[in-house]
Amino acid sequence: MSLSRPSGRSASQLRHVSIQRSFTRHAEGSVLVSFGDTRVLCTASVDNKVPGFLRGKGEGWVTAEYGMLPRATHTRSDREAARGKQGGRTLEIQRLIGRSLRACVDRSLLGERTITLDCDVLQADGGTRTAAITGAYVALVDAVNGLLKKGDIKRSPIFGAVAAISVGIYRGVPVLDLDYAEDSDCDTDMNVVMNDGGGFIEVQGTAEGHAFRRNELDALLVLAEQGCTELFAAQQAALAE
Amino acid sequence: MSLSRPSGRSASQLRHVSIQRSFTRHAEGSVLVSFGDTRVLCTASVDNKVPGFLRGKGEGWVTAEYGMLPRATHTRSDREAARGKQGGRTLEIQRLIGRSLRACVDRSLLGERTITLDCDVLQADGGTRTAAITGAYVALVDAVNGLLKKGDIKRSPIFGAVAAISVGIYRGVPVLDLDYAEDSDCDTDMNVVMNDGGGFIEVQGTAEGHAFRRNELDALLVLAEQGCTELFAAQQAALAE
Amino acid sequence: MSLSRPSGRSASQLRHVSIQRSFTRHAEGSVLVSFGDTRVLCTASVDNKVPGFLRGKGEGWVTAEYGMLPRATHTRSDREAARGKQGGRTLEIQRLIGRSLRACVDRSLLGERTITLDCDVLQADGGTRTAAITGAYVALVDAVNGLLKKGDIKRSPIFGAVAAISVGIYRGVPVLDLDYAEDSDCDTDMNVVMNDGGGFIEVQGTAEGHAFRRNELDALLVLAEQGCTELFAAQQAALAE
Amino acid sequence: MSLSRPSGRSASQLRHVSIQRSFTRHAEGSVLVSFGDTRVLCTASVDNKVPGFLRGKGEGWVTAEYGMLPRATHTRSDREAARGKQGGRTLEIQRLIGRSLRACVDRSLLGERTITLDCDVLQADGGTRTAAITGAYVALVDAVNGLLKKGDIKRSPIFGAVAAISVGIYRGVPVLDLDYAEDSDCDTDMNVVMNDGGGFIEVQGTAEGHAFRRNELDALLVLAEQGCTELFAAQQAALAE
Amino acid sequence: MSLSRPSGRSASQLRHVSIQRSFTRHAEGSVLVSFGDTRVLCTASVDNKVPGFLRGKGEGWVTAEYGMLPRATHTRSDREAARGKQGGRTLEIQRLIGRSLRACVDRSLLGERTITLDCDVLQADGGTRTAAITGAYVALVDAVNGLLKKGDIKRSPIFGAVAAISVGIYRGVPVLDLDYAEDSDCDTDMNVVMNDGGGFIEVQGTAEGHAFRRNELDALLVLAEQGCTELFAAQQAALAE
Amino acid sequence: MSLSRPSGRSASQLRHVSIQRSFTRHAEGSVLVSFGDTRVLCTASVDNKVPGFLRGKGEGWVTAEYGMLPRATHTRSDREAARGKQGGRTLEIQRLIGRSLRACVDRSLLGERTITLDCDVLQADGGTRTAAITGAYVALVDAVNGLLKKGDIKRSPIFGAVAAISVGIYRGVPVLDLDYAEDSDCDTDMNVVMNDGGGFIEVQGTAEGHAFRRNELDALLVLAEQGCTELFAAQQAALAE
Repeated sequence: MSLSRPSGRSASQLRHVSIQRSFTRHAEGSVLVSFGDTRVLCTASVDNKVPGFLRGKGEGWVTAEYGMLPRATHTRSDREAARGKQGGRTLEIQRLIGRSLRACVDRSLLGERTITLDCDVLQADGGTRTAAITGAYVALVDAVNGLLKKGDIKRSPIFGAVAAISVGIYRGVPVLDLDYAEDSDCDTDMNVVMNDGGGFIEVQGTAEGHAFRRNELDALLVLAEQGCTELFAAQQAALAE
Repeated sequence: MSLSRPSGRSASQLRHVSIQRSFTRHAEGSVLVSFGDTRVLCTASVDNKVPGFLRGKGEGWVTAEYGMLPRATHTRSDREAARGKQGGRTLEIQRLIGRSLRACVDRSLLGERTITLDCDVLQADGGTRTAAITGAYVALVDAVNGLLKKGDIKRSPIFGAVAAISVGIYRGVPVLDLDYAEDSDCDTDMNVVMNDGGGFIEVQGTAEGHAFRRNELDALLVLAEQGCTELFAAQQAALAE
Repeated sequence: MSLSRPSGRSASQLRHVSIQRSFTRHAEGSVLVSFGDTRVLCTASVDNKVPGFLRGKGEGWVTAEYGMLPRATHTRSDREAARGKQGGRTLEIQRLIGRSLRACVDRSLLGERTITLDCDVLQADGGTRTAAITGAYVALVDAVNGLLKKGDIKRSPIFGAVAAISVGIYRGVPVLDLDYAEDSDCDTDMNVVMNDGGGFIEVQGTAEGHAFRRNELDALLVLAEQGCTELFAAQQAALAE
Repeated sequence: MSLSRPSGRSASQLRHVSIQRSFTRHAEGSVLVSFGDTRVLCTASVDNKVPGFLRGKGEGWVTAEYGMLPRATHTRSDREAARGKQGGRTLEIQRLIGRSLRACVDRSLLGERTITLDCDVLQADGGTRTAAITGAYVALVDAVNGLLKKGDIKRSPIFGAVAAISVGIYRGVPVLDLDYAEDSDCDTDMNVVMNDGGGFIEVQGTAEGHAFRRNELDALLVLAEQGCTELFAAQQAALAE
Repeated sequence: MSLSRPSGRSASQLRHVSIQRSFTRHAEGSVLVSFGDTRVLCTASVDNKVPGFLRGKGEGWVTAEYGMLPRATHTRSDREAARGKQGGRTLEIQRLIGRSLRACVDRSLLGERTITLDCDVLQADGGTRTAAITGAYVALVDAVNGLLKKGDIKRSPIFGAVAAISVGIYRGVPVLDLDYAEDSDCDTDMNVVMNDGGGFIEVQGTAEGHAFRRNELDALLVLAEQGCTELFAAQQAALAE
Repeated sequence: MSLSRPSGRSASQLRHVSIQRSFTRHAEGSVLVSFGDTRVLCTASVDNKVPGFLRGKGEGWVTAEYGMLPRATHTRSDREAARGKQGGRTLEIQRLIGRSLRACVDRSLLGERTITLDCDVLQADGGTRTAAITGAYVALVDAVNGLLKKGDIKRSPIFGAVAAISVGIYRGVPVLDLDYAEDSDCDTDMNVVMNDGGGFIEVQGTAEGHAFRRNELDALLVLAEQGCTELFAAQQAALAE
């Protein structure tokens, strides 16, 4: 089946990925990640406290918050702070980011501290949650390296790497890394979070139009594995700078 | 690998499923669904209005709300109405239920009306969201049949059936329909929503302990397909009464 | 004056009352109470903490929360958790339930623990608050008996029994236990909470149409005493099972 | 039984009642009512709109809001606006005030307008809700007279008068018009709202310590009737000025 | 330039200022301040606690809250407690009052206690925030004198006096102490908070119509100094009573 | 008096100012403004609606919202969307930005549309509100030029330019454009908003330590005028690109 993606990319082609460290200066980790026109600022903040349910257990916590600037999108959306609550989509995404990053952290090595990953979308063009997870991992590594350098912790609690990508069926063809034009017009949309050992951390597939068949699901998972492999390389390259 | 599930079930065995229609009398559809000790009251309410973004388009809407009675669980949890907001888990589940049910409805045939599926957990023992989806489908059919009988709509907007089941890897073995004892002690937890044509509507897998491998994912999907087949039969049996 | 109640009952006739214990299994007390078509699930939860204002005083606390499932009523009402606050009617009722049950508890014998009575209306047909009080008493007794059996307390803090019933003037005639059809069309509506020693705990009478005269009030109180007597018998019968 | 009330009053003696009209100048009715040291500012505001559920029905609405200045009481209480919600007690009281005043208004004669009675407690010494109802009636009359004078309505929608008083059993003796010292130390507390035709609009009795007997209730109602009679005279005197 | 102020006052003439102490009896300081028809009740409440950020530092805190009764104004405004939040204007004003009063308090002499200044507007006719600051100072002095008299503190933490006045350019002419008629029709509105040593604590000027020139600003500041001088005298006179 | 500013700047020296247009691509105007390390993203969004109070009057509206990313600051602050409300400081600043920008717009020429200026602080180092106003002006001009280009409006509603700067007394010396190190350690802090005709739009001066004298105020105003002059040049240079 021949395919014409709006961006001209091939079916298995990621958008240009850029991972810029130290984007702002106060946070212990601060990464501006771009998947094409999607730009997310991911900061990691270290706090020497843990939530109530962990107090006194000698373990740390890793959590995430997600936000979208009101005009990150084509039309302005309400500011959640002004509306007085975070929407369901926001809560769902920040829970996903938190769970995903905790999957590569040995919290007993972190000690009683919390690392909060704030992922704020400056510009949205599809795939903000996968960019956020991919960038937040780098911010997390920077924050942990800071703790190691200061001697606050002895061994890194991070094992492996975590990245995420979206895949979907666009006009009948499985494609990698949907942009907004594809996302708003696709039949199936799946976000896949993996570790660099080839394991799956989260698989969230949703049929937008028709239900997807098992063979479609299989094809999407193959594409996602391939995309994450490229993202792990991009993370390593950024961290090597 | 030999397996001993806390309930004594075999790996591919569902809990006892019961679907009781007309559990309460005011709602257009009212179903008490049980997956073992998990009991969810699903009501379908028809309203001759649609949300703002659909007004004047001649289409209907199907949406869901989810709640858990404070003492549905082992220890009492705060009442969300008293805390003043629904938690992230609640919002995530009710969004999932709504999307899942919309996947079997041709909203242009529904006319400008909204069907709200309220899924309230009376007793929780794992799998509340999958029981809710499975029961809400039956309540939705009852509500739509009421509209057909009254002549409010000419053709049923429902195509096919929708059911959901959880699968997971418990002590290394893929198992079907996790109860609470398994759910709180498993490595991977996946909720799968399917239609009766064998298509996937939602696949949401989360690694709780270690990341899951592709072959594990495959085994889980096979179990889920099998479980949903049994649920479609249970739905049809209930609707035939 | 001849009277025709919508239900065909006589003026001093209660609806069928049913009190089903152990309706759900997690709570220390769990009662499904029915006054005709009004069905309320009352659970009693024991927590080994007291609110701030009682900390360190060696006394316990008994409190109540009330909720109505969105489609317990003829037309669906908004879910309070989704609206972000409990309405005035809800707060008023749960304050009444809490005060009423505290009236039969010697809190110094309860020790520093809280018993929360959650009263959730599954189906409403008038009289939900009186059914809730009557059922919550039974759930409270079950929870206290559990504490006695475990040896957590030595003597029961419960003295006497508490029950509640509505009375009103329907088409000029004082009647007992208003159902929804009567409630929405009556001149005066009064809720009466009593103990089994014949004492009044709460009397809340409201003129809906015309103001009520002293002799009408007197007649209503007589009916209420009679209704509560029957309810105390029903509570004892349920507790004897 | 001999009695010594903290204030030195006899059992059936009201505190000094003062009703000052035109206390502030913007409202259509503005009354400062004092029952002894309890001082409540009651304003009546006319708005040419009705709530949604009445729109287009040609009827008016009368409603009330109640507030307590943070330091109206012995110790400062939190400002409800700062806490972000009105407490259960506040909602209960304002619902009572609204219902009570609606009991003397023929809303079809009011036309499609709303009269809001704001009752704000400047200083509290027991009986704020009964002072509020008694004062709000006078503010309501002033507002309605303004509408009549301007020709906005032809006939007064007000029939009869409404007043309210508290009664209780203090150290075994039924007394009229409890002040704070009595209220915080009494066995039974009852608020009674009456019209000037001798009818009861609301009777709300609560056993604080021991449950009250029928003969106690009867004695309290007699006291309340007597107190309301004096209040109707005070209202008329104020309106005659 | 000749000027005709709506009130007939000269350009540099304050409205009648009245400062009535002990207006209510529970608060440690209670002042009803009037600037013409603007009437604000200012209470000072002493609490033996400090906010979290000051705990254990041996310092006290002075803070303010501001409210407007719903019908203090020409048309009724929503009750902030009912809307569930304080508006931006309210927060802005109460922050200003708190900052202004802290400017005359040596908090290390206050000990670990908080004085809360509640400023509630009973009637508004322009200048509510300046009246509030001017009156709150007197309530603060009364509360501190109470602490001194009881021996709770040894030396007064108050140094100097604080007062506030508005100035503006009305129809081209700088005028003192704008009332509502002027305020809603002026080009520039400035609130000035001063101490009695001639120092400025706050200067907040806003161009409503055209931007103001430096010479206009200078003229306004001269007027404000003159107005504050009169207010300091009024405060002293009230405190001398 | 000799002065040593932490940054090494002279008393009347601005930080490096940068105004980068088209920083994001969806908004009608999108400006990243930097005053040294303070970086604020200002977007202008055009909406063809006006708030209720302006509907049908043929006028437009200009408003602003302000936010701070949680880790824009030295230590992470709570996300306002998660806390469920905007703080007093946020509301105060966004009201100031809105008023300031409205001061250069003839709203009758804008037609019935709203321009919303979202000012989100990516990195904070003092002076975020003045940077926001200065940058928002440029975003506003870009949005208005877009309307002119599309022919939606005939004449520009913008007259003149608006910019803002902070001034303060740092260690006894009046200085221009306080950074965080100075701001947290200064005696007086003043924000001045001006137009390019030399008029003042807002003057907000606060004594942090000791009250400021009239001659200090005068010196600060002179510095502010000088700073704004430089900012107008920077705005024009950016708009000329």
